Amino acid sequence: MTLFETLRDRCRTEWEAYTHHEFVTELGAGTLPQAVFRDYLVQDFHFLVQFARANALAAYKSRTLADIAAAHRSTGAILAETELHLRLTERWGIPRAELEAAAEKQATVAYTRYVLDCGMAGDALDLHVALAPCTIGYAEIGAQLMPRLAEQGGQDAHPYGEWIAEYSGVEFTAASRAAIEQLDVLAGGGLTDRRLDELTEVFRTATLLEIDFWQQALDSGR
Amino acid sequence: MTLFETLRDRCRTEWEAYTHHEFVTELGAGTLPQAVFRDYLVQDFHFLVQFARANALAAYKSRTLADIAAAHRSTGAILAETELHLRLTERWGIPRAELEAAAEKQATVAYTRYVLDCGMAGDALDLHVALAPCTIGYAEIGAQLMPRLAEQGGQDAHPYGEWIAEYSGVEFTAASRAAIEQLDVLAGGGLTDRRLDELTEVFRTATLLEIDFWQQALDSGR
Amino acid sequence: MTLFETLRDRCRTEWEAYTHHEFVTELGAGTLPQAVFRDYLVQDFHFLVQFARANALAAYKSRTLADIAAAHRSTGAILAETELHLRLTERWGIPRAELEAAAEKQATVAYTRYVLDCGMAGDALDLHVALAPCTIGYAEIGAQLMPRLAEQGGQDAHPYGEWIAEYSGVEFTAASRAAIEQLDVLAGGGLTDRRLDELTEVFRTATLLEIDFWQQALDSGR
Amino acid sequence: MTLFETLRDRCRTEWEAYTHHEFVTELGAGTLPQAVFRDYLVQDFHFLVQFARANALAAYKSRTLADIAAAHRSTGAILAETELHLRLTERWGIPRAELEAAAEKQATVAYTRYVLDCGMAGDALDLHVALAPCTIGYAEIGAQLMPRLAEQGGQDAHPYGEWIAEYSGVEFTAASRAAIEQLDVLAGGGLTDRRLDELTEVFRTATLLEIDFWQQALDSGR
Repeated sequence: MTLFETLRDRCRTEWEAYTHHEFVTELGAGTLPQAVFRDYLVQDFHFLVQFARANALAAYKSRTLADIAAAHRSTGAILAETELHLRLTERWGIPRAELEAAAEKQATVAYTRYVLDCGMAGDALDLHVALAPCTIGYAEIGAQLMPRLAEQGGQDAHPYGEWIAEYSGVEFTAASRAAIEQLDVLAGGGLTDRRLDELTEVFRTATLLEIDFWQQALDSGR
Repeated sequence: MTLFETLRDRCRTEWEAYTHHEFVTELGAGTLPQAVFRDYLVQDFHFLVQFARANALAAYKSRTLADIAAAHRSTGAILAETELHLRLTERWGIPRAELEAAAEKQATVAYTRYVLDCGMAGDALDLHVALAPCTIGYAEIGAQLMPRLAEQGGQDAHPYGEWIAEYSGVEFTAASRAAIEQLDVLAGGGLTDRRLDELTEVFRTATLLEIDFWQQALDSGR
Repeated sequence: MTLFETLRDRCRTEWEAYTHHEFVTELGAGTLPQAVFRDYLVQDFHFLVQFARANALAAYKSRTLADIAAAHRSTGAILAETELHLRLTERWGIPRAELEAAAEKQATVAYTRYVLDCGMAGDALDLHVALAPCTIGYAEIGAQLMPRLAEQGGQDAHPYGEWIAEYSGVEFTAASRAAIEQLDVLAGGGLTDRRLDELTEVFRTATLLEIDFWQQALDSGR
Repeated sequence: MTLFETLRDRCRTEWEAYTHHEFVTELGAGTLPQAVFRDYLVQDFHFLVQFARANALAAYKSRTLADIAAAHRSTGAILAETELHLRLTERWGIPRAELEAAAEKQATVAYTRYVLDCGMAGDALDLHVALAPCTIGYAEIGAQLMPRLAEQGGQDAHPYGEWIAEYSGVEFTAASRAAIEQLDVLAGGGLTDRRLDELTEVFRTATLLEIDFWQQALDSGR
């Protein structure tokens, strides 16, 4: 069993609440209000900026050239995802200047700064565990929603087809698998019980903060 | 005009909304529901733990022995305030084990980790500006609520008399004055416009996160 | 066997070279040139300032109130040791202004910044292992030199009596024992082989940098 | 006058001692012993690994997407320079495994960890000032040594032709110019006297540590 599977099993309730959140099911069904999705897109932009910082932090915290290079590639992947995101928001009628000027909301600040603090105060494993609900969870959600595309007449016919296609796509799926393997490499063949408990709390808190992030978008439409 | 006054003037609306929040006025009037105050006390415990870390971070970031020693004294003051807090929560019937086991809520995570990240990514001035709404704001709120004590027959008759007495007391007032002076010392006799804009955004965000912290307690009672 | 003993055994050669360095034996014999000791005192002042920062970093990196408070006490102990040091340097005719104005030499920068970087990039255990050659090593050296005091007619008759008395004294010995226990607490009942190898390299490098620190003082007299 | 020129003027003696160090002039003349150059190459590998970490730190410390992306590109440039370096060391008969296994010497630890600590404890400007003697200084040295290539019959005939060609080349020169501009952008149109004094001390210390780095290589041949 991978470390990721162990953590997910230990936080099964929170993980279900995150990956099957009302935001996710409505997005899959295409019934999510567009204003809610637009609010999500704005906050997700700020999220990606902070996640690029978190991956740069992982490079700083690395001990070997190979680990620095791997974290550098991850940062590059986040920056590329942000460029995709900017094109997506443009098509949704949100100009870049508006995106950058928009204030970060509370759930955005809470999740991103929690991850950065875990990474700074802990070690590289703490950081990667805090990143896992995002990196690995989004791929799981993408895979879970992919059948919705065909049911609704393909990617172009689905209002959120582009989002679903991106997170169920080849690149994101590969990045998720690499993140799962990376956790096991960092765990180095074994963890003490106390360490596993600590990491479980990091994983649980990060998952709860992902739930808050979906909820924040839903609440914007009320 | 001190740097603190400049920042407060530039964020006047947010500052008023924070220092005259419904939580504050109800606490002063003694009409705040006890369950709300209890929820606040639990989250404030976690808040103090993270603020002790933020003051330790200030010591780490210092360049001179005098600055390290000053930040060390601030950390000591927060740890002492936490001990007071533990006695207060005990009198409110919250055992220490319950406090430590209680999860940090979103607004607690958002505010504390934002401050820590400001301090880590920026310099000592960024950190102290992010801390100011708490350190200086609580003293302002204490002074503003002090007359409520006499109106309600003194500290012992007021349901939240102990809290008001602490934050309007000699020690906390002196700590607030020292924090105001420290900001001017760190600003070193001048700031560029761009730097002042950056610091204003830090101050504004931290103030908004304080508002969320009051609101989180109020919401717990609904 | 404690983690400290494991690390010392794995770096036996370096540990011997550090704790029985020519600087140490000449200091014990009272034959160390005074100019060398004076150079050491100046650099040790800068060393203590950076070590106070390293202990503040440990407080920042702590997860619990108890761990923050423990690291805060360690920082306080270093600041107190620095005050003692300032009195000692004054008696050796080095005014405080001269101390503070003196440049940090290379071996001072190398050791202190290495420890700080270990602590920042790694976790709390990395930091405490990097601090161990200083905290625990000085107590071992103090105990080893204590008999030299009696041989030379007591502390007052020995040219370096005050230094030997301080590091063989009750307080420093207790601090060293606490540091040994702290390592085992942080190791949490077990380490993987890979982790132990990493920590061994940190301990070895820190010990080598302590040797360079003694050598730097000796070289100043040549 | 750029900030870089101001700093160089304020540390003119140290800057001359660094850019016209015996190591540099012997390297230009082709008279540097090969064993000395080989020792330098091994330490420079470790240097580059830590400088990649320092650039990743700059990305972490950035506030905007543009600044994160710029620091990410710098990290990428260092990683590419490291790949070039690995090919160079291979041609000099130093296998990669030997490079990675070689211990970091004192001057390497001192310089790299000083830069990382400056960056972590200060802000982005402190970090870039600490990096400047390397980034900008190497391009200045490259330009200064370029005429030596023609004098000795071209790059292939010069024993250190490849090194001189790299640091006088188009890419490195452009990177140096970008670093000079970046300092002025970060200074944001003005610095207080106190801030300029602080940055001067950072620049001076980093330059002195570069001198120690050359000297360490020369000393290896004695």
